[in-house]
Amino acid sequence: MTLNQYIRDVQDFPKPGIVFKDITPLLNNPKAVRECMALLVNNLRERNIDKVVGAESRGFFFATLLAYELGAGFVPVRKPKKLPFETISATYELEYGTDTLEVHTDAIQPGDRVLIHDDVLATGGTAKAVCELVEQLGGVIVQCNFLMELSFLKGREKIGRYEVYAPLVY
Amino acid sequence: MTLNQYIRDVQDFPKPGIVFKDITPLLNNPKAVRECMALLVNNLRERNIDKVVGAESRGFFFATLLAYELGAGFVPVRKPKKLPFETISATYELEYGTDTLEVHTDAIQPGDRVLIHDDVLATGGTAKAVCELVEQLGGVIVQCNFLMELSFLKGREKIGRYEVYAPLVY
Repeated sequence: MTLNQYIRDVQDFPKPGIVFKDITPLLNNPKAVRECMALLVNNLRERNIDKVVGAESRGFFFATLLAYELGAGFVPVRKPKKLPFETISATYELEYGTDTLEVHTDAIQPGDRVLIHDDVLATGGTAKAVCELVEQLGGVIVQCNFLMELSFLKGREKIGRYEVYAPLVY
Repeated sequence: MTLNQYIRDVQDFPKPGIVFKDITPLLNNPKAVRECMALLVNNLRERNIDKVVGAESRGFFFATLLAYELGAGFVPVRKPKKLPFETISATYELEYGTDTLEVHTDAIQPGDRVLIHDDVLATGGTAKAVCELVEQLGGVIVQCNFLMELSFLKGREKIGRYEVYAPLVY
């Protein structure tokens, strides 16, 4: 199975000049999802992951599944005012604009071994902000895990001090 | 295990007078998630579900897992302008305000057997809008599935023509 065939390029979304990688055809196909999961879980089973952190919203899809497969807790990192309990926040630059992310202060315990997942590694701004949040709470980042990497945007440089893994590279 | 202990009441969120049911402590606990999944999947394995539809964003968590467990495709229903491809939309009343939801036109094929999932059945407005979208695309709704039902809001009346299931009732 070639997973690329389930990832749809959408021109000029969300802004002119951006080619958006749409993973909804992949999510729509259970065999493709199973194959993605096998790739994403990869060498993680032996690494004692306590928490899987997913970034709103597209990161939630595979982060939830990764937590389930790895027997770890799932932690949503969300846009401002979405999480109801006490939070900390980090602001960052996106490929197109800026944004802020929040996490519940009780979501990660000091020493927790944390897997961070998002669907796409683009400029790395989102991932870097999520790393900051996890470390503020005392979490140990085991890997930054992505379904795909847009290597021409050099996001890997921004989070280079962490282990970065993405099975699909464009 | 009493699942209720993992659902946190947050007063006055997102607006004064609302008591919000926060499922993040539950998501944070892999054993509680496994137990929820056993309850949610319940009698669905024999019912040939083709697609599981989850409503943005909290519906995504368990909808993704349900699709995975049932070997079905996952379909996200999202807020306006979040889905990049061709969509249809439905507008509805919330417990607190109004909102619009969209789905990709190619996400459901005519005749697909569809499970709809959201975390909470409150007034039923969201679920009713999702049902409309699914039926517009020719999907057959097998069940409206929720983690919990706030029975005093009588959402079940609004979607009474469908099978409704929620393991936790408040």
